[in-house]
Amino acid sequence: MKIAVVGSGALGLYYGSLLQRGGHDLRFLLRRDYEAVRTKGLAVSSVDGDFHLPQVKGALTPEEIGHSDLVLVGLKTFANDRYKELIGPLVGEKTLILTLQNGLGNEETLADLFGPERILGGVAYLLSNRGEPGTVRHLGQGRVFLGEYVPDRSGKGAIIAEIFRGCGIDCRYVEDVLRARWEKLVWNIPFNGLCALLRAPVERIMGKAETRRLARQIMLEVIAAANAQRLSAPIDTAYADRMMEFTDKMHTYRPSMQIDREEKRPLELRSIFANPISAGEARGVPMPRVEELYDLLSFGEPDEAEG
Amino acid sequence: MKIAVVGSGALGLYYGSLLQRGGHDLRFLLRRDYEAVRTKGLAVSSVDGDFHLPQVKGALTPEEIGHSDLVLVGLKTFANDRYKELIGPLVGEKTLILTLQNGLGNEETLADLFGPERILGGVAYLLSNRGEPGTVRHLGQGRVFLGEYVPDRSGKGAIIAEIFRGCGIDCRYVEDVLRARWEKLVWNIPFNGLCALLRAPVERIMGKAETRRLARQIMLEVIAAANAQRLSAPIDTAYADRMMEFTDKMHTYRPSMQIDREEKRPLELRSIFANPISAGEARGVPMPRVEELYDLLSFGEPDEAEG
Repeated sequence: MKIAVVGSGALGLYYGSLLQRGGHDLRFLLRRDYEAVRTKGLAVSSVDGDFHLPQVKGALTPEEIGHSDLVLVGLKTFANDRYKELIGPLVGEKTLILTLQNGLGNEETLADLFGPERILGGVAYLLSNRGEPGTVRHLGQGRVFLGEYVPDRSGKGAIIAEIFRGCGIDCRYVEDVLRARWEKLVWNIPFNGLCALLRAPVERIMGKAETRRLARQIMLEVIAAANAQRLSAPIDTAYADRMMEFTDKMHTYRPSMQIDREEKRPLELRSIFANPISAGEARGVPMPRVEELYDLLSFGEPDEAEG
Repeated sequence: MKIAVVGSGALGLYYGSLLQRGGHDLRFLLRRDYEAVRTKGLAVSSVDGDFHLPQVKGALTPEEIGHSDLVLVGLKTFANDRYKELIGPLVGEKTLILTLQNGLGNEETLADLFGPERILGGVAYLLSNRGEPGTVRHLGQGRVFLGEYVPDRSGKGAIIAEIFRGCGIDCRYVEDVLRARWEKLVWNIPFNGLCALLRAPVERIMGKAETRRLARQIMLEVIAAANAQRLSAPIDTAYADRMMEFTDKMHTYRPSMQIDREEKRPLELRSIFANPISAGEARGVPMPRVEELYDLLSFGEPDEAEG
């Protein structure tokens, strides 16, 4: 299967490397890592065992890659205004597009551009970050939930999930991608937000009584907004407690938004904050604590940072 | 009148200097400024005109000062656990104690220690900060509202207000000190909080749409909690708009809590945040945005910072 990776950050490089190792024809759209990957391949340091891909096909433009069977989108969502330019040249008649990006609104935008029937969405619970050019670090976990944007009887989502599993990725097909997205937001909103705002890794947020309490209150706000979205099944409030336990076990993880803030990159505020807040409001469920966190994070951003 | 100033920060030094210039026998309890004041007196740079007091009576201990007619308390509220030690030696049979400190709970604690009948409370709308030792800067405003902690027919509060006015201080007697305190909290909670958290002066908070909106939402939460406190008259929500206009005119002011955070001093979180939150909760009025701001500010404080 010819698979193009657009947005070759930690997530794109990691899953792409597993898919290539599993025998697929991977094409990475690269920028920062282009020279390193061309000359040295891709080195993956992973809690599941390190490995090295000596030959990796990198490209600087999507035109070099051309039509692909699957496009794996791992872009930061503040770059979503570049979807057309970056993904368009990859899309042939039968191309599927899978976005594993954060937050809400990604599938919708892709569907508007490329048609809803080819869009798959998913969430990845992956602890990873980029190392030196040509390297990626897998720090823990890695489960993916994916499914069709518009559920149909084609079996597309289940097939892609099977392909991922065949490459050693812990991947589960879900019928309700929106529910999976909201579940992930229950974690992403408090911890990406608080860690970025306070420039502190998760264990410091969890280790201070006031911010620990706040994280949990924010989770409950997100769950209430999620459960107003006509999901296939509600998210239980006990899910917040499970996420607290899960976070306690992470020890010193820095979420991507914290790293973005510390490295003065723009934040994924639209997909992780603004779109969920709008979705809550649209169903009459305000999220005052989430909104405050969004307002405080926005303070550090240039006006109109997102396209 | 023999007036002792306890807590000779910007507020204590400024009002004390006006009272001394007006002819009263001022005694300043000093620490940082002791040597400078002893040798050079006190230099006041003020938008109302600079002046210099060449002879100023400073003391390092309250015992050196002894019983006074009035004790003016300008301590940071995180030092309120030192009331007994610092104020006790100043209190004779007829001594009055006026606290112009921030937030809630100061009069109550003083009343418990020294008896309610001698306690006066007030709020000062003063833009000032400390300069080099032996100097204080008055940047604008300066109005004081004061009254008895337990309103009575003695006229004590009105007399002190008259004395202040006689020294050129814009001072008004109020019957309902608690209402004056809540009015000031409508400004102090959002702007001390946001400026300290984001380490930014007021005009940057006001200049960004998201934090400007948040400041106003926080004001409305404080007004709702205030109006559940059985005040003599409710605080109108239009007061929030007036405070927004007032803040727009401040230009580049750094509130005291921002300065405290930047200089790594403890913050007045108990009196300005925790006590008002408790007062709201006690009357069934939660303040989720205020609570979040408190939680976020607490993150930067050592545990149990306040006594």
